[in-house]
Amino acid sequence: MRKVFQEELTQVGDDLIEISKLVSEAIEKATTAFEGADIDLAQDVIAADARIDFLQNGLDERAIDILALQGPVASDLRMIVGSLRMSASLERMGDLARHVAQLARLRYPATVIPSSLTETFKAMARHDLQITHQVTQLLETRDLNVAREILKTNSAVDDLHLSVFKAIASPDWNETASTTVDVALASRYFERFADHGVSVARKVTYLVTGEWQPEGF
Amino acid sequence: MRKVFQEELTQVGDDLIEISKLVSEAIEKATTAFEGADIDLAQDVIAADARIDFLQNGLDERAIDILALQGPVASDLRMIVGSLRMSASLERMGDLARHVAQLARLRYPATVIPSSLTETFKAMARHDLQITHQVTQLLETRDLNVAREILKTNSAVDDLHLSVFKAIASPDWNETASTTVDVALASRYFERFADHGVSVARKVTYLVTGEWQPEGF
Repeated sequence: MRKVFQEELTQVGDDLIEISKLVSEAIEKATTAFEGADIDLAQDVIAADARIDFLQNGLDERAIDILALQGPVASDLRMIVGSLRMSASLERMGDLARHVAQLARLRYPATVIPSSLTETFKAMARHDLQITHQVTQLLETRDLNVAREILKTNSAVDDLHLSVFKAIASPDWNETASTTVDVALASRYFERFADHGVSVARKVTYLVTGEWQPEGF
Repeated sequence: MRKVFQEELTQVGDDLIEISKLVSEAIEKATTAFEGADIDLAQDVIAADARIDFLQNGLDERAIDILALQGPVASDLRMIVGSLRMSASLERMGDLARHVAQLARLRYPATVIPSSLTETFKAMARHDLQITHQVTQLLETRDLNVAREILKTNSAVDDLHLSVFKAIASPDWNETASTTVDVALASRYFERFADHGVSVARKVTYLVTGEWQPEGF
């Protein structure tokens, strides 16, 4: 019984890692599609999001079965409940990657972002991708240094997000209203994506230390 | 033991209802602040959001204690896990009400929304407020007719959200880039707010029927 239980806990951890890797793939493809107006790649991301949702549902069902059949307590219990929260964050990251791909599809064959902001969005996308790699690493190793790196990467995304809104508000900005909205929404998608990475980092930190960290710990 | 357990389950349900009522209050005040450029009311909403977060944490702790100490199974277990999900949705609705209030504060003493869209946003806000009342009623009664009403109200919000984006894309739109961004973000906040109401409706429907409903059931 105990052995089965440990295997099931490990499986939940593995599921989280698998979903995290799919989220990496999703944001990488979504931003490539977004930067290069590649509609096939955008379609891929949109279709692949269903797989992430499916895996999240499977993980949640497994977690609930463990709660019902094994009655875990203490740190095992917190790990299971934490996994439910982390799977929700990862699923939401998948949704946001899909939103980025949907913007690319909507504006095809044009690119979404005006050239003045191309580099800013490339940097944001690179940081978001890095966060997914860090999240996977954190789930694999539970190394809290990685959790701290996620917070730093998220700060870089926040700064870039702010710079986008400053660019829009500046007198030099003369894009159409539709482009302005696309830019604002895309920037928010990238920013929220990173926030969910931070949620996972905070949750793992809590599971490792037993102490809930204030925002921006 | 059994009596304590039932009392604790009831308490979790009552906590959800209390949070739902605070979310009603938050969206009502936030939209009044937003429509009338009332900075004091906006500050109230921003400050009160901490209370919602605090109650959510308390509910989650209580739910985890029940899992640890009572080892609930079957429908009780699903109710507890469902409550964790619903509290996350309600907490996020509180965040979105805070975002609306923050926009009002940012643009004070101006109003956020240009007069051409005042009525559209009033309607969106009214529907969002209605959704919170419906969510409270659904949590209190578990009447699935109310769940279906929430879906209808959400569709109305989606239509209004779409009409905002059409207005921005039309050739007649000649607002500044900052106003355009504010309008787009505010519309998205109201739309996401309603989506989280739908999440609660789906979760309650699942708890009552035992069957997971596809999106837009």
